[in-house]
Amino acid sequence: MSRSPRWRPYALRLKPLYRASDVEGLTHLDSLPGELPFVRGPHAGMYTEKPWTIRQYTGFADAAQTNQRLRQCLAEGGQGLSLAFDLATHRGYDSTDPQAHADVGRAGVAIDSVEDMHELLAGIDLAQVSVSMTMSGAVLPVLAAFIVAAGETGVAPQQLRGTIQNDILKEFMVRNTWIFAPGPSLRIVTDVIEYLADALPQFNPISVSGYHFQEAGGDAVLELALTLANARTYVEQVQGRGLDVEAFCRRMTFFFGVGSDFYVEIAKLRAARLLWSELTGQLGIRSEQGRALRMHCQTSGWSLSAQGAQNNIVRTTLQALAAVFGGTQSLHTNAWDEALCLPGEEASRLARNTQQILQLESGLCDVIDPWGGSWMMESLTAKLVSEARRTIEGIDAQGGVLAALASGWISKRIHIGALEAQARIDSGEQPVLGVNVLPQPGCELSRPASQRDSQSLRTRQSLRLIRLRASRDAAEVAARLEAISQCARSGEGNLLAATIEAIRARATVGECTRALERVWPRYQQPQSFAPGLYGNIRRDARWQELCDRLAAWRTHHGRYPRLLLAKLGQDGHDRGVRVLAAAMSDAGFAVHLGPLFQTPESLVSQLIDEPVDLLGVSTLAGAHGELLPELLRGMSRNSIHVPVVTGGVIPAYDVACLRVAGIAAHFGPGSDITVIGESLLALLEGRSSLSVRSMAGGR
Amino acid sequence: MSRSPRWRPYALRLKPLYRASDVEGLTHLDSLPGELPFVRGPHAGMYTEKPWTIRQYTGFADAAQTNQRLRQCLAEGGQGLSLAFDLATHRGYDSTDPQAHADVGRAGVAIDSVEDMHELLAGIDLAQVSVSMTMSGAVLPVLAAFIVAAGETGVAPQQLRGTIQNDILKEFMVRNTWIFAPGPSLRIVTDVIEYLADALPQFNPISVSGYHFQEAGGDAVLELALTLANARTYVEQVQGRGLDVEAFCRRMTFFFGVGSDFYVEIAKLRAARLLWSELTGQLGIRSEQGRALRMHCQTSGWSLSAQGAQNNIVRTTLQALAAVFGGTQSLHTNAWDEALCLPGEEASRLARNTQQILQLESGLCDVIDPWGGSWMMESLTAKLVSEARRTIEGIDAQGGVLAALASGWISKRIHIGALEAQARIDSGEQPVLGVNVLPQPGCELSRPASQRDSQSLRTRQSLRLIRLRASRDAAEVAARLEAISQCARSGEGNLLAATIEAIRARATVGECTRALERVWPRYQQPQSFAPGLYGNIRRDARWQELCDRLAAWRTHHGRYPRLLLAKLGQDGHDRGVRVLAAAMSDAGFAVHLGPLFQTPESLVSQLIDEPVDLLGVSTLAGAHGELLPELLRGMSRNSIHVPVVTGGVIPAYDVACLRVAGIAAHFGPGSDITVIGESLLALLEGRSSLSVRSMAGGR
Repeated sequence: MSRSPRWRPYALRLKPLYRASDVEGLTHLDSLPGELPFVRGPHAGMYTEKPWTIRQYTGFADAAQTNQRLRQCLAEGGQGLSLAFDLATHRGYDSTDPQAHADVGRAGVAIDSVEDMHELLAGIDLAQVSVSMTMSGAVLPVLAAFIVAAGETGVAPQQLRGTIQNDILKEFMVRNTWIFAPGPSLRIVTDVIEYLADALPQFNPISVSGYHFQEAGGDAVLELALTLANARTYVEQVQGRGLDVEAFCRRMTFFFGVGSDFYVEIAKLRAARLLWSELTGQLGIRSEQGRALRMHCQTSGWSLSAQGAQNNIVRTTLQALAAVFGGTQSLHTNAWDEALCLPGEEASRLARNTQQILQLESGLCDVIDPWGGSWMMESLTAKLVSEARRTIEGIDAQGGVLAALASGWISKRIHIGALEAQARIDSGEQPVLGVNVLPQPGCELSRPASQRDSQSLRTRQSLRLIRLRASRDAAEVAARLEAISQCARSGEGNLLAATIEAIRARATVGECTRALERVWPRYQQPQSFAPGLYGNIRRDARWQELCDRLAAWRTHHGRYPRLLLAKLGQDGHDRGVRVLAAAMSDAGFAVHLGPLFQTPESLVSQLIDEPVDLLGVSTLAGAHGELLPELLRGMSRNSIHVPVVTGGVIPAYDVACLRVAGIAAHFGPGSDITVIGESLLALLEGRSSLSVRSMAGGR
Repeated sequence: MSRSPRWRPYALRLKPLYRASDVEGLTHLDSLPGELPFVRGPHAGMYTEKPWTIRQYTGFADAAQTNQRLRQCLAEGGQGLSLAFDLATHRGYDSTDPQAHADVGRAGVAIDSVEDMHELLAGIDLAQVSVSMTMSGAVLPVLAAFIVAAGETGVAPQQLRGTIQNDILKEFMVRNTWIFAPGPSLRIVTDVIEYLADALPQFNPISVSGYHFQEAGGDAVLELALTLANARTYVEQVQGRGLDVEAFCRRMTFFFGVGSDFYVEIAKLRAARLLWSELTGQLGIRSEQGRALRMHCQTSGWSLSAQGAQNNIVRTTLQALAAVFGGTQSLHTNAWDEALCLPGEEASRLARNTQQILQLESGLCDVIDPWGGSWMMESLTAKLVSEARRTIEGIDAQGGVLAALASGWISKRIHIGALEAQARIDSGEQPVLGVNVLPQPGCELSRPASQRDSQSLRTRQSLRLIRLRASRDAAEVAARLEAISQCARSGEGNLLAATIEAIRARATVGECTRALERVWPRYQQPQSFAPGLYGNIRRDARWQELCDRLAAWRTHHGRYPRLLLAKLGQDGHDRGVRVLAAAMSDAGFAVHLGPLFQTPESLVSQLIDEPVDLLGVSTLAGAHGELLPELLRGMSRNSIHVPVVTGGVIPAYDVACLRVAGIAAHFGPGSDITVIGESLLALLEGRSSLSVRSMAGGR
C-alpha cells in the first residue's frame, strides 16, 4: 500500500498510517516544554515568548566589506551575527602566507589580527548583539582577537554573548579544517572552555556540530549519534580537567543540519533533546538546565541544485520550517544561488526574509511544539532515539569516539552514506527535481559572477600587516609568542589566556599558530575511499556500458587507466571527491586520491612523480580562479599534457573562462556520476573537444 | 505568556500550549482515513497511494496560445488541466461584443465557439487527462462546447473526467461573475447537474467554492460556513428536482483557499470534511462515499505582495504545504509575480515545481494525515467545526443562504472581514514583510510586462466568428437558439441539453447567452460598503491627521469632497474598491461607489451627471491598457478635468505609460490606505505632480 520511498534508509522508514496505539507506552508524552526530557523544547515558553534568532552566516572578502553586510543584515531584521571566516584563517594562515594565498577572502572574511577584528565589528554594539563564530581550527587567535577587540572598545568579557564553534572532533571526522593532531586539538578545545567559563560566563564555549555529518553523507541517525557522542566526549574532557561540568553543560550548544526529509528532520531535533537529557543523566549532570539541549540549525547546502536553482527557495523554506517545528533556538537559511556561487546580496536577503515570513506572517510561533501528540511524530521521535542510542552503543563498542575516529570507522560510515545517496540519485531511485526528474539546465546567473579581486585583497591585507608590524613592540610580541609555545610544550597554563596576551600585543593569527607549530607539527590525515559499494548499487545498462568500455580500454592497453583526484587549496570538503573516487574505481579506473590542502606546485610535483592519464580537481570554496590557472601553467611548464577536469561550485562565467584556459570539462553539483565517467572515458580516448584532443594528442 | 497575535480573529485564537487533556472526549480521534467522519481524509490510502493532482489554473490570450502552454504544462509534470477563461467568456459575451472588448484574452483564454474549444484542447487526450473548468456564469455554452468538442474528436461523454465549477451562489456573494438573477441562475446550475448525472457520470457537476470568500476577506470560519451552507443548498435543489441525490453527493467537489495562517488553514480543511459528513447526515445521505468531502485547493492570491515580490515564493510554499497537510485532492500554486502582472512562464514553472518538490523530495506523501493525534491540531479542528457550525446556524436563523444573500447579510459579513484585515495591516498590527515590516520597493520586473495585443486578438477572434457564421446553417442555429429561449421560458426540458444542440450547430457563446437574455434580463446587483468600521480600528496619529485635514477642507469648502470609485470592464473583484470606499468615507470623503461592469462611456456619462472632485478606478484583470486611455479620452472630449487615480494589479511599465497618459497616481496591492488618502487629499488640494496640477488647475 505504501509508496514510502525505497530511498529512505531502513532505520528511517515510515508507516503509512499512525494511530493512537502507536504511541502507547511512550513515557515522554506526559512531559512539558522546558522540563525533562525536553522533547517538547528546552524552554517553557519557546517561540510564544521569543521566536528563534535569525542568525545568518556572513563573511567575505575583507573585514570592512563584511562589516557593511553585517550592519545591513542587522538593519534588515537579522537578530544575531554569525561570522564566516575564510579558509586561510580557519587553517591559521595570515593572508600573506603562500600556502593559503588563493583562499584569502573567498569563503569567508580574512582576519589576520585584532585590527581586522576591530574593522569587522565596527559600529556593532557587542554588549547587545550576540556573535556566533564558526571557528574550530584557529580558535585560539580568532577568539582572542574577538575578546581583545571587544575589550578595547569598552565591552568587558563578562558582557559578551555568543558562541564559538570550537568542535574539533567533527573536523577530523568530516570537515577537515583541523590544524593539529587530535590530542593537541582537544587540549585547545578544553583550554578554551576553561577560560570562557571564568572570563566570559555568558558565552557558549562550544557548539557541537552535526550539520557537517549530514552534509558529508550521514543520515539522521548517524548525525544524531556522532554529535551526541562527540558532545559526551567534550563533557568527559571537562570532567577530566576537574572543571565545573554543570556550568559547562548549561552553556553547551549544538548545531544541526536540516535536510529535505521533512518528518524525519523534525523528529531528529526532538530526539536529540530527549537523548541528550538521557546521556547527561548518565554523565551525572544534576541540574535540569544542564541537561536541556539548545541548538542552532542550518538548512542543507547539499540539497540545493544548480539545475533549476530557484527551486532551492522552496527547498530551503521547507527545511527552515522543519527546523522551527523541531524547536531550534536559532537558524541560518541558505541562499538559493549557493549551488552556483558564493551567495549574492539579493539571494541573501530572500533567505533572511524566508525566516521573517515564518516568524511574522504564518502564526507558527503561537503554539509550542505543535506536533506534540501527533501519533506519527511522537512515534518517529521515539524510533530515532532508539536507533541513535543503538549507534552510540556501536561507537562505545569500538572504544568510544576517539578510538572509532582513529580506526577510520566513523569516516567510512559517513562515506558509505554519501555513496549510497549518490547512487540512489544517479539511478533515479531518489528523485531530485531538475536533476533526475524533469532535468533542467543549470541556471545562468543574470548578475555577473562576483569578480572579487583576490590580489588586491591580499595587497590590502599585506599593507595592513606591514603597518601592524611597524607599530608594535617586536620584543613584546616575540615574548608573548614564546609564552604560547611554552604553554603548549609544558602543558601548564591556559592557551587562550596566553594567546589573548599575544593578540593584544598585535601578534597575528599566523604567528600565534606558528608558535604552536613549534611544539605540535601540522597534522596530515590520510585520505581514503571505499570501493565496491557504489558499483554494487548501480545496476542500470548505461553504467554497465561504461564499465564494459573501461574494461575494453584495460584489455587493449594492458593496464588500468590512471585517474588522479586532487583537492587544491585549504578547502577540506571532501564528500564529492571521495564519492567520485569510489565510483570511478568501481567503474574501472585506477584511482589515486591526493591529500588535502595541496598547492598547484605540490600537485605538479606529484604528477611528475606518478604520471596519470587524467586529472580531476575538486574545488568548492571559490579559489579556483587562481589555483587552476596556476596548475595549468605549472603543468605546461613541465610538459604534462594530461586532460584536467574540475568538480564543485564554480560560477558559469568562470567555467567558460576555465574552458578557454584549458580545463577539459567541469561538473557542478548534481552531476550524474555516469555522465562524469563517460566524459572521462571520452577524454581518455581522445574523443572530446578540440582543446582536449590537442592535449591528449600530445601524449 | 502568549504572543499569539491580536490580529487573529477571536474565534481562531490558539492556546500557547496543548496537552493530552485538550483532546479528551473528541470522538473523531478514533476514526480512520476513508471512514466517517473523514477528518483524516476522504480516501483510505491518501497520498501513500496517489499524491494530490498538480492542477495549475491556465489560460490567456487565444485558444492556440493557451493550448501550447497546457501541453507544455503536462509535459513538465502538470497532472490535470484547469482552464481559466477570460472575463468576456465568463460573462457570456463573444470577443466582438463592445461591452467586453477590453477583457478579451486578458485574465484567461477567449472562447467564442466550439471551434475555439477544439483549438484549446488540440492534441490533449481527453480520455486520459481530467479537465477542470472555472466557469459558473456562462456555464451552459462553455460546458456544451467542451462536451461537443470532445465528442467530435471521438471521446464519448461517459469517458470525460473533470470538474465544472458551476457554483453560482458564491458569485452573488463575492466574485460577481454572474449573468442572470439568483433564481434563473439556480435553474441553470441544477440543469447542469441533472444533465451530467446522466450523460457524464465521471464528471463532477459542481465545485462548491470557499476560495473566493477568503480572497474577499472572510476568515476561515466564514469560509467554511458559507461554503458548506451553499453546498447544502445545492443538495436541496437536487433533492427538490427529484434527482438521485446520493449519486450527486458522490460527485460533488469543493474548492478552498489556503492562506498564510498555517495551523488554522490545515485545521480548516480537516474540519470541512468532518462538518460536511455531519451536514450530509442531516440531509439524509446514506452512502459513506457521498458524505466524504473531496477538494481542490489554491494558495492565496490576496496574501501575495508586490513589494519584495520574490517573498511570495516562500508564502506560496507554506500555503501549499498547509493544503497538503489538510489532505487536498488537487492543488494550484500561485506564481510569485501575480502581485505584479498576469503570471509569466518562468514564475509559473517555479509554482508548479513547488508542488513537485513537495511530492518528490520531502517524504511528505509517506504518511497519511501526519497531524493526526496532535493535541493542537485535533483541538483546533474541533474548534473550527463548532465555530463554523454556529455560523451556519446563524445563516439558518436568517432563513438560509438565499435569504441571507438577498438581505445583504453575507456580503456585509465578508466586507467587514476585509475591512478589519486591511485596518490590521495598515496599523501594523498584522505584520506583512515588505509591506508594513521592513518596507521594500515594488519589484521592477526584469522581463518586460506582457504586451499582448488585444486588438489583434479581437481581430483574430472576429475573423474566426465570420468564418464560423459563413459555414454554418443559419436556420438551424436560429431554431436551436429559439429552443434555448423556449426551454428557459417554459421551465421544461434541460438547458444544457438545449445548449449542446445549439453549440453543435455552431452557435456562439454570446448567442446562447442572448437566447437566455430574451427570457431573463441581465442582472445588476447594488454595490455597497460599510462605513464606520475601518475608522474605528485606525487610531494612529497619521490617520487622525488625514481625517483632520479632510475636515478642514470640508469646513473651508462648506461641503464634503466627492470621490467616485468605479470598476471598469467585466472584472467583478470588488474587495479592494469596497474597502477603499469604506475607509475613504471614514476619512471624510463623500464616496460614491459605482456599479460593476461599467464601460468607459457609461463612466463618463456618470461623471457628467454627477460631478465629483476625484475619480478612482479599480482594475485587476489586465484590461487597464485599453479601458483607461478610453476613459481619459472620453473625459477630455467632455472637458472633465478630474484627477484620476487607479488601484489594482498593473505592471510597472504600464503604470509608467498611464502616468504619461494622465493618470495621477497608481496604488498596487499592499498599498497603505492612509497613503492613498494622503495622495487623494494632495490631488484635491492641487499639490501633486505637474500633470495633476494642470488637470486640477483647470477646474
